[in-house]
Amino acid sequence: MNYHDYKSCIDACLRCAALCDHCASSCLQEENLENMKRCIQLDMECATLCYAAARLMSIGSEQAGALCRLCAEMCERCSEECGKHAHEHCKECSEACKTCAEHCRKMAA
Amino acid sequence: MNYHDYKSCIDACLRCAALCDHCASSCLQEENLENMKRCIQLDMECATLCYAAARLMSIGSEQAGALCRLCAEMCERCSEECGKHAHEHCKECSEACKTCAEHCRKMAA
Amino acid sequence: MNYHDYKSCIDACLRCAALCDHCASSCLQEENLENMKRCIQLDMECATLCYAAARLMSIGSEQAGALCRLCAEMCERCSEECGKHAHEHCKECSEACKTCAEHCRKMAA
Amino acid sequence: MNYHDYKSCIDACLRCAALCDHCASSCLQEENLENMKRCIQLDMECATLCYAAARLMSIGSEQAGALCRLCAEMCERCSEECGKHAHEHCKECSEACKTCAEHCRKMAA
Repeated sequence: MNYHDYKSCIDACLRCAALCDHCASSCLQEENLENMKRCIQLDMECATLCYAAARLMSIGSEQAGALCRLCAEMCERCSEECGKHAHEHCKECSEACKTCAEHCRKMAA
Repeated sequence: MNYHDYKSCIDACLRCAALCDHCASSCLQEENLENMKRCIQLDMECATLCYAAARLMSIGSEQAGALCRLCAEMCERCSEECGKHAHEHCKECSEACKTCAEHCRKMAA
Repeated sequence: MNYHDYKSCIDACLRCAALCDHCASSCLQEENLENMKRCIQLDMECATLCYAAARLMSIGSEQAGALCRLCAEMCERCSEECGKHAHEHCKECSEACKTCAEHCRKMAA
Repeated sequence: MNYHDYKSCIDACLRCAALCDHCASSCLQEENLENMKRCIQLDMECATLCYAAARLMSIGSEQAGALCRLCAEMCERCSEECGKHAHEHCKECSEACKTCAEHCRKMAA
Protein backbone atom coordinates (compact mmCIF):
# COMPACT_ATOMS: atom_id res chain seq x y z
CA MET A 1 0.00 0.00 0.00
CA ASN A 2 1.38 3.40 -0.84
CA TYR A 3 0.65 6.96 -1.96
CA HIS A 4 -1.57 5.96 -4.89
CA ASP A 5 -3.73 3.58 -2.85
CA TYR A 6 -4.30 6.31 -0.30
CA LYS A 7 -4.42 9.28 -2.64
CA SER A 8 -7.98 10.44 -1.97
CA CYS A 9 -7.43 10.23 1.80
CA ILE A 10 -4.06 12.00 1.58
CA ASP A 11 -5.63 14.77 -0.49
CA ALA A 12 -8.48 15.14 2.00
CA CYS A 13 -5.99 15.35 4.89
CA LEU A 14 -3.84 17.94 3.16
CA ARG A 15 -6.80 20.10 2.17
CA CYS A 16 -8.18 19.85 5.70
CA ALA A 17 -4.83 20.71 7.29
CA ALA A 18 -4.33 23.79 5.11
CA LEU A 19 -7.87 25.01 5.77
CA CYS A 20 -7.42 24.46 9.52
CA ASP A 21 -4.27 26.59 9.45
CA HIS A 22 -6.10 29.22 7.41
CA CYS A 23 -9.09 29.14 9.75
CA ALA A 24 -6.91 29.53 12.85
CA SER A 25 -5.15 32.63 11.55
CA SER A 26 -8.38 34.07 10.10
CA CYS A 27 -10.24 33.59 13.40
CA LEU A 28 -7.58 35.77 15.05
CA GLN A 29 -8.78 38.67 12.86
CA GLU A 30 -12.45 38.31 13.73
CA GLU A 31 -14.30 40.78 15.92
CA ASN A 32 -15.85 38.14 18.13
CA LEU A 33 -12.48 36.68 19.06
CA GLU A 34 -13.62 35.44 22.47
CA ASN A 35 -16.05 33.10 20.72
CA MET A 36 -13.37 31.74 18.43
CA LYS A 37 -10.97 30.41 21.08
CA ARG A 38 -11.98 26.78 20.87
CA CYS A 39 -12.07 26.95 17.08
CA ILE A 40 -8.48 28.19 16.95
CA GLN A 41 -7.32 25.56 19.43
CA LEU A 42 -8.97 22.69 17.56
CA ASP A 43 -7.71 24.02 14.23
CA MET A 44 -4.15 23.82 15.53
CA GLU A 45 -4.65 20.29 16.84
CA CYS A 46 -6.40 19.10 13.70
CA ALA A 47 -3.77 20.49 11.33
CA THR A 48 -1.07 18.64 13.30
CA LEU A 49 -2.84 15.29 13.03
CA CYS A 50 -3.88 15.72 9.40
CA TYR A 51 -0.34 16.52 8.30
CA ALA A 52 1.05 13.56 10.24
CA ALA A 53 -1.58 11.23 8.79
CA ALA A 54 -0.84 12.41 5.24
CA ARG A 55 2.86 11.77 5.79
CA LEU A 56 2.42 8.27 7.21
CA MET A 57 0.16 7.36 4.30
CA SER A 58 2.56 8.86 1.75
CA ILE A 59 5.43 6.73 3.04
CA GLY A 60 3.24 3.65 3.38
CA SER A 61 3.56 3.18 7.14
CA GLU A 62 1.84 0.20 8.75
CA GLN A 63 0.62 2.59 11.44
CA ALA A 64 -1.13 4.89 8.99
CA GLY A 65 -4.51 3.28 9.66
CA ALA A 66 -4.27 3.72 13.42
CA LEU A 67 -3.32 7.36 12.99
CA CYS A 68 -6.18 7.90 10.54
CA ARG A 69 -8.58 6.61 13.20
CA LEU A 70 -7.34 9.28 15.62
CA CYS A 71 -7.37 11.86 12.86
CA ALA A 72 -11.01 11.09 12.05
CA GLU A 73 -12.05 11.71 15.65
CA MET A 74 -10.18 14.98 15.71
CA CYS A 75 -11.66 16.08 12.39
CA GLU A 76 -15.16 15.35 13.65
CA ARG A 77 -14.66 17.50 16.73
CA CYS A 78 -13.09 20.30 14.70
CA SER A 79 -15.85 20.11 12.10
CA GLU A 80 -18.50 20.40 14.80
CA GLU A 81 -16.87 23.43 16.41
CA CYS A 82 -16.19 25.23 13.11
CA GLY A 83 -19.76 24.46 12.07
CA LYS A 84 -21.05 26.70 14.87
CA HIS A 85 -19.61 29.81 13.29
CA ALA A 86 -20.80 31.76 10.26
CA HIS A 87 -17.41 32.97 9.06
CA GLU A 88 -16.59 31.75 5.58
CA HIS A 89 -13.26 30.25 6.72
CA CYS A 90 -15.07 28.33 9.47
CA LYS A 91 -17.64 26.94 7.07
CA GLU A 92 -14.99 25.83 4.57
CA CYS A 93 -12.93 24.30 7.34
CA SER A 94 -15.93 22.49 8.81
CA GLU A 95 -16.72 20.95 5.42
CA ALA A 96 -13.10 19.96 4.80
CA CYS A 97 -12.89 18.36 8.26
CA LYS A 98 -16.09 16.41 7.65
CA THR A 99 -14.85 15.09 4.31
CA CYS A 100 -11.47 14.24 5.82
CA ALA A 101 -13.11 12.37 8.70
CA GLU A 102 -15.07 10.25 6.23
CA HIS A 103 -11.95 9.38 4.22
CA CYS A 104 -9.96 8.61 7.38
CA ARG A 105 -12.74 6.40 8.77
CA LYS A 106 -12.78 4.37 5.55
CA MET A 107 -9.01 4.19 5.42
CA ALA A 108 -8.79 3.02 9.04
CA ALA A 109 -11.44 0.34 8.57
CA MET B 1 -2.99 37.88 1.71
CA ASN B 2 -4.15 34.50 2.88
CA TYR B 3 -4.97 30.91 1.92
CA HIS B 4 -7.14 31.84 -1.06
CA ASP B 5 -4.61 34.22 -2.60
CA TYR B 6 -1.96 31.53 -2.36
CA LYS B 7 -4.14 28.52 -3.09
CA SER B 8 -2.45 27.33 -6.29
CA CYS B 9 1.00 27.61 -4.70
CA ILE B 10 -0.16 25.87 -1.50
CA ASP B 11 -1.67 23.05 -3.56
CA ALA B 12 1.55 22.68 -5.56
CA CYS B 13 3.62 22.56 -2.35
CA LEU B 14 1.37 19.95 -0.73
CA ARG B 15 1.30 17.76 -3.82
CA CYS B 16 5.08 18.03 -4.14
CA ALA B 17 5.63 17.24 -0.45
CA ALA B 18 3.44 14.13 -0.56
CA LEU B 19 5.11 12.88 -3.73
CA CYS B 20 8.57 13.50 -2.23
CA ASP B 21 7.62 11.41 0.80
CA HIS B 22 6.23 8.74 -1.49
CA CYS B 23 9.33 8.81 -3.69
CA ALA B 24 11.67 8.50 -0.69
CA SER B 25 9.96 5.39 0.66
CA SER B 26 9.52 3.90 -2.82
CA CYS B 27 13.20 4.42 -3.65
CA LEU B 28 14.05 2.29 -0.60
CA GLN B 29 12.33 -0.65 -2.32
CA GLU B 30 14.22 -0.31 -5.60
CA GLU B 31 16.87 -2.78 -6.70
CA ASN B 32 19.40 -0.12 -7.60
CA LEU B 33 19.31 1.39 -4.13
CA GLU B 34 22.89 2.69 -4.25
CA ASN B 35 21.88 4.96 -7.13
CA MET B 36 18.90 6.31 -5.22
CA LYS B 37 20.74 7.72 -2.19
CA ARG B 38 20.78 11.32 -3.30
CA CYS B 39 17.18 11.08 -4.47
CA ILE B 40 16.03 9.89 -1.04
CA GLN B 41 18.05 12.58 0.73
CA LEU B 42 16.68 15.41 -1.43
CA ASP B 43 13.15 14.02 -1.16
CA MET B 44 13.36 14.29 2.62
CA GLU B 45 14.72 17.83 2.46
CA CYS B 46 12.22 18.94 -0.14
CA ALA B 47 9.20 17.55 1.72
CA THR B 48 10.29 19.47 4.83
CA LEU B 49 10.50 22.79 3.01
CA CYS B 50 7.32 22.28 0.97
CA TYR B 51 5.26 21.52 4.06
CA ALA B 52 6.69 24.51 5.91
CA ALA B 53 6.02 26.80 2.92
CA ALA B 54 2.42 25.57 2.64
CA ARG B 55 1.87 26.25 6.32
CA LEU B 56 3.33 29.78 6.26
CA MET B 57 1.17 30.61 3.25
CA SER B 58 -1.94 29.10 4.83
CA ILE B 59 -1.56 31.28 7.91
CA GLY B 60 -0.65 34.35 5.87
CA SER B 61 2.86 34.89 7.24
CA GLU B 62 4.87 37.88 6.03
CA GLN B 63 7.82 35.50 5.66
CA ALA B 64 6.01 33.15 3.33
CA GLY B 65 7.60 34.72 0.25
CA ALA B 66 11.13 34.35 1.56
CA LEU B 67 10.49 30.72 2.41
CA CYS B 68 8.99 30.09 -1.02
CA ARG B 69 12.20 31.41 -2.58
CA LEU B 70 14.20 28.80 -0.64
CA CYS B 71 11.60 26.17 -1.43
CA ALA B 72 11.85 26.88 -5.16
CA GLU B 73 15.61 26.30 -5.11
CA MET B 74 15.16 23.05 -3.24
CA CYS B 75 12.44 21.89 -5.61
CA GLU B 76 14.64 22.61 -8.61
CA ARG B 77 17.46 20.49 -7.19
CA CYS B 78 15.11 17.70 -6.24
CA SER B 79 13.41 17.80 -9.63
CA GLU B 80 16.76 17.53 -11.38
CA GLU B 81 17.87 14.55 -9.29
CA CYS B 82 14.55 12.71 -9.58
CA GLY B 83 14.55 13.42 -13.30
CA LYS B 84 17.62 11.22 -13.70
CA HIS B 85 15.73 8.08 -12.73
CA ALA B 86 13.22 6.07 -14.71
CA HIS B 87 11.11 4.87 -11.78
CA GLU B 88 7.52 6.04 -12.02
CA HIS B 89 7.64 7.60 -8.53
CA CYS B 90 10.76 9.53 -9.51
CA LYS B 91 9.18 10.87 -12.68
CA GLU B 92 6.01 11.97 -10.88
CA CYS B 93 8.07 13.56 -8.15
CA SER B 94 10.30 15.36 -10.61
CA GLU B 95 7.26 16.83 -12.37
CA ALA B 96 5.62 17.86 -9.10
CA CYS B 97 8.86 19.52 -7.93
CA LYS B 98 9.17 21.42 -11.19
CA THR B 99 5.60 22.70 -10.99
CA CYS B 100 6.06 23.62 -7.35
CA ALA B 101 9.27 25.51 -8.11
CA GLU B 102 7.43 27.57 -10.73
CA HIS B 103 4.61 28.45 -8.33
CA CYS B 104 7.05 29.29 -5.55
CA ARG B 105 9.15 31.50 -7.84
CA LYS B 106 6.05 33.47 -8.82
CA MET B 107 4.85 33.69 -5.26
CA ALA B 108 8.24 34.93 -4.03
CA ALA B 109 8.51 37.56 -6.75
CA MET C 1 -2.46 19.98 31.41
CA ASN C 2 0.06 21.77 29.25
CA TYR C 3 3.69 22.03 28.17
CA HIS C 4 5.10 21.99 31.69
CA ASP C 5 3.14 18.92 32.79
CA TYR C 6 4.36 17.06 29.73
CA LYS C 7 7.85 18.53 29.52
CA SER C 8 9.87 15.34 30.03
CA CYS C 9 7.78 13.48 27.44
CA ILE C 10 7.95 16.38 24.96
CA ASP C 11 11.72 16.54 25.37
CA ALA C 12 12.00 12.78 24.82
CA CYS C 13 9.86 13.01 21.66
CA LEU C 14 11.85 15.89 20.24
CA ARG C 15 15.20 14.24 20.94
CA CYS C 16 13.94 11.01 19.42
CA ALA C 17 12.56 12.75 16.33
CA ALA C 18 15.80 14.61 15.67
CA LEU C 19 17.88 11.45 16.12
CA CYS C 20 15.55 9.53 13.79
CA ASP C 21 16.02 12.18 11.11
CA HIS C 22 19.77 12.08 11.70
CA CYS C 23 19.82 8.28 11.58
CA ALA C 24 17.85 8.18 8.33
CA SER C 25 20.21 10.51 6.50
CA SER C 26 23.30 8.89 8.05
CA CYS C 27 22.14 5.40 7.05
CA LEU C 28 22.08 6.62 3.44
CA GLN C 29 25.84 7.15 3.66
CA GLU C 30 26.63 3.67 5.00
CA GLU C 31 28.34 0.99 2.92
CA ASN C 32 25.84 -1.71 3.80
CA LEU C 33 22.90 0.35 2.52
CA GLU C 34 20.82 -2.68 1.57
CA ASN C 35 20.71 -3.67 5.24
CA MET C 36 19.59 -0.21 6.31
CA LYS C 37 16.36 0.02 4.30
CA ARG C 38 13.99 -0.86 7.11
CA CYS C 39 15.90 1.38 9.50
CA ILE C 40 15.53 4.38 7.18
CA GLN C 41 11.84 3.65 6.63
CA LEU C 42 11.06 3.34 10.35
CA ASP C 43 13.15 6.43 11.14
CA MET C 44 10.98 8.47 8.77
CA GLU C 45 7.77 7.10 10.28
CA CYS C 46 8.96 7.54 13.84
CA ALA C 47 10.10 11.14 13.34
CA THR C 48 6.67 12.00 11.95
CA LEU C 49 4.82 10.59 14.96
CA CYS C 50 7.25 11.98 17.55
CA TYR C 51 6.97 15.50 16.15
CA ALA C 52 3.18 15.28 16.04
CA ALA C 53 3.05 13.95 19.61
CA ALA C 54 5.31 16.74 20.86
CA ARG C 55 3.08 19.33 19.19
CA LEU C 56 -0.19 17.94 20.59
CA MET C 57 1.32 17.87 24.08
CA SER C 58 2.73 21.39 23.72
CA ILE C 59 -0.69 22.80 22.86
CA GLY C 60 -2.44 20.68 25.50
CA SER C 61 -4.65 18.64 23.19
CA GLU C 62 -7.09 16.17 24.72
CA GLN C 63 -5.92 13.68 22.08
CA ALA C 64 -2.28 13.90 23.10
CA GLY C 65 -2.52 10.72 25.18
CA ALA C 66 -3.98 8.65 22.36
CA LEU C 67 -1.27 9.85 20.00
CA CYS C 68 1.42 9.08 22.58
CA ARG C 69 0.12 5.50 22.75
CA LEU C 70 0.65 5.16 18.98
CA CYS C 71 3.97 6.93 19.22
CA ALA C 72 5.17 4.48 21.89
CA GLU C 73 4.43 1.51 19.64
CA MET C 74 6.27 3.13 16.77
CA CYS C 75 9.25 4.00 18.94
CA GLU C 76 9.48 0.43 20.17
CA ARG C 77 9.58 -0.92 16.63
CA CYS C 78 12.12 1.68 15.53
CA SER C 79 14.26 1.05 18.62
CA GLU C 80 14.30 -2.67 17.90
CA GLU C 81 15.31 -2.19 14.27
CA CYS C 82 17.99 0.42 15.02
CA GLY C 83 19.27 -1.80 17.81
CA LYS C 84 20.28 -4.42 15.23
CA HIS C 85 22.91 -2.16 13.71
CA ALA C 86 26.33 -1.20 15.05
CA HIS C 87 26.49 2.29 13.54
CA GLU C 88 26.79 4.98 16.19
CA HIS C 89 23.74 6.87 14.80
CA CYS C 90 21.69 3.67 15.01
CA LYS C 91 22.69 3.01 18.60
CA GLU C 92 21.91 6.58 19.67
CA CYS C 93 18.60 6.46 17.85
CA SER C 94 17.68 3.11 19.36
CA GLU C 95 18.32 4.45 22.86
CA ALA C 96 16.37 7.65 22.21
CA CYS C 97 13.44 5.65 20.82
CA LYS C 98 13.44 3.38 23.87
CA THR C 99 13.43 6.32 26.26
CA CYS C 100 10.73 8.05 24.25
CA ALA C 101 8.57 4.92 24.26
CA GLU C 102 8.79 4.75 28.05
CA HIS C 103 7.78 8.40 28.44
CA CYS C 104 4.94 8.03 25.95
CA ARG C 105 3.64 4.86 27.66
CA LYS C 106 3.51 6.70 31.00
CA MET C 107 1.94 9.76 29.44
CA ALA C 108 -0.75 7.67 27.70
CA ALA C 109 -1.61 5.73 30.86
CA MET D 1 28.05 18.44 8.73
CA ASN D 2 25.28 16.64 10.57
CA TYR D 3 23.19 16.41 13.74
CA HIS D 4 26.15 16.52 16.10
CA ASP D 5 27.73 19.57 14.49
CA TYR D 6 24.43 21.40 14.75
CA LYS D 7 23.23 19.97 18.05
CA SER D 8 23.10 23.19 20.08
CA CYS D 9 21.21 24.98 17.30
CA ILE D 10 18.82 22.04 16.80
CA ASP D 11 18.12 21.95 20.54
CA ALA D 12 17.47 25.69 20.57
CA CYS D 13 15.08 25.39 17.62
CA LEU D 14 13.16 22.49 19.17
CA ARG D 15 12.85 24.20 22.55
CA CYS D 16 11.72 27.40 20.84
CA ALA D 17 9.18 25.58 18.67
CA ALA D 18 7.63 23.75 21.62
CA LEU D 19 7.43 26.93 23.69
CA CYS D 20 5.86 28.80 20.74
CA ASP D 21 3.18 26.12 20.47
CA HIS D 22 2.65 26.26 24.22
CA CYS D 23 2.49 30.07 24.19
CA ALA D 24 -0.06 30.09 21.35
CA SER D 25 -2.47 27.75 23.12
CA SER D 26 -1.89 29.44 26.51
CA CYS D 27 -2.56 32.90 25.03
CA LEU D 28 -5.98 31.62 23.96
CA GLN D 29 -6.84 31.15 27.65
CA GLU D 30 -5.84 34.65 28.71
CA GLU D 31 -8.36 37.30 29.69
CA ASN D 32 -6.83 39.99 27.52
CA LEU D 33 -7.17 37.88 24.39
CA GLU D 34 -7.52 40.87 22.05
CA ASN D 35 -3.99 41.93 23.00
CA MET D 36 -2.60 38.47 22.31
CA LYS D 37 -3.59 38.16 18.64
CA ARG D 38 -0.24 39.05 17.16
CA CYS D 39 1.54 36.89 19.72
CA ILE D 40 -0.53 33.83 18.74
CA GLN D 41 0.01 34.50 15.03
CA LEU D 42 3.78 34.87 15.35
CA ASP D 43 3.96 31.82 17.64
CA MET D 44 2.35 29.72 14.91
CA GLU D 45 4.70 31.07 12.25
CA CYS D 46 7.78 30.70 14.42
CA ALA D 47 7.01 27.10 15.44
CA THR D 48 6.68 26.19 11.75
CA LEU D 49 10.07 27.62 10.83
CA CYS D 50 11.87 26.31 13.92
CA TYR D 51 10.66 22.76 13.31
CA ALA D 52 11.64 22.92 9.65
CA ALA D 53 15.08 24.31 10.51
CA ALA D 54 15.66 21.56 13.10
CA ARG D 55 14.74 18.94 10.53
CA LEU D 56 17.00 20.30 7.77
CA MET D 57 19.90 20.45 10.22
CA SER D 58 19.20 16.94 11.52
CA ILE D 59 19.38 15.49 8.03
CA GLY D 60 22.39 17.61 7.09
CA SER D 61 20.79 19.59 4.26
CA GLU D 62 22.92 22.06 2.33
CA GLN D 63 20.04 24.51 2.65
CA ALA D 64 19.95 24.36 6.43
CA GLY D 65 21.97 27.57 6.74
CA ALA D 66 19.67 29.56 4.49
CA LEU D 67 16.64 28.37 6.44
CA CYS D 68 18.33 29.22 9.75
CA ARG D 69 18.81 32.78 8.50
CA LEU D 70 15.05 33.07 7.88
CA CYS D 71 14.36 31.34 11.18
CA ALA D 72 16.53 33.83 13.07
CA GLU D 73 14.55 36.76 11.65
CA MET D 74 11.29 35.12 12.61
CA CYS D 75 12.53 34.33 16.11
CA GLU D 76 13.60 37.93 16.62
CA ARG D 77 10.15 39.22 15.67
CA CYS D 78 8.42 36.64 17.83
CA SER D 79 10.73 37.33 20.76
CA GLU D 80 10.00 41.05 20.53
CA GLU D 81 6.24 40.53 20.46
CA CYS D 82 6.21 37.96 23.28
CA GLY D 83 8.48 40.24 25.29
CA LYS D 84 5.69 42.86 25.45
CA HIS D 85 3.50 40.60 27.58
CA ALA D 86 3.81 39.69 31.25
CA HIS D 87 2.37 36.17 31.03
CA GLU D 88 4.84 33.54 32.13
CA HIS D 89 4.42 31.60 28.84
CA CYS D 90 5.17 34.76 26.86
CA LYS D 91 8.30 35.51 28.86
CA GLU D 92 9.60 31.94 28.49
CA CYS D 93 8.82 31.99 24.79
CA SER D 94 10.48 35.36 24.28
CA GLU D 95 13.67 34.08 25.93
CA ALA D 96 13.64 30.83 23.93
CA CYS D 97 13.14 32.79 20.69
CA LYS D 98 16.02 35.10 21.53
CA THR D 99 18.35 32.19 22.27
CA CYS D 100 17.24 30.40 19.12
CA ALA D 101 17.81 33.51 17.01
CA GLU D 102 21.38 33.72 18.30
CA HIS D 103 22.10 30.08 17.51
CA CYS D 104 20.54 30.37 14.06
CA ARG D 105 22.50 33.55 13.27
CA LYS D 106 25.74 31.77 14.13
CA MET D 107 24.76 28.67 12.22
CA ALA D 108 23.84 30.69 9.12
CA ALA D 109 27.09 32.67 9.17
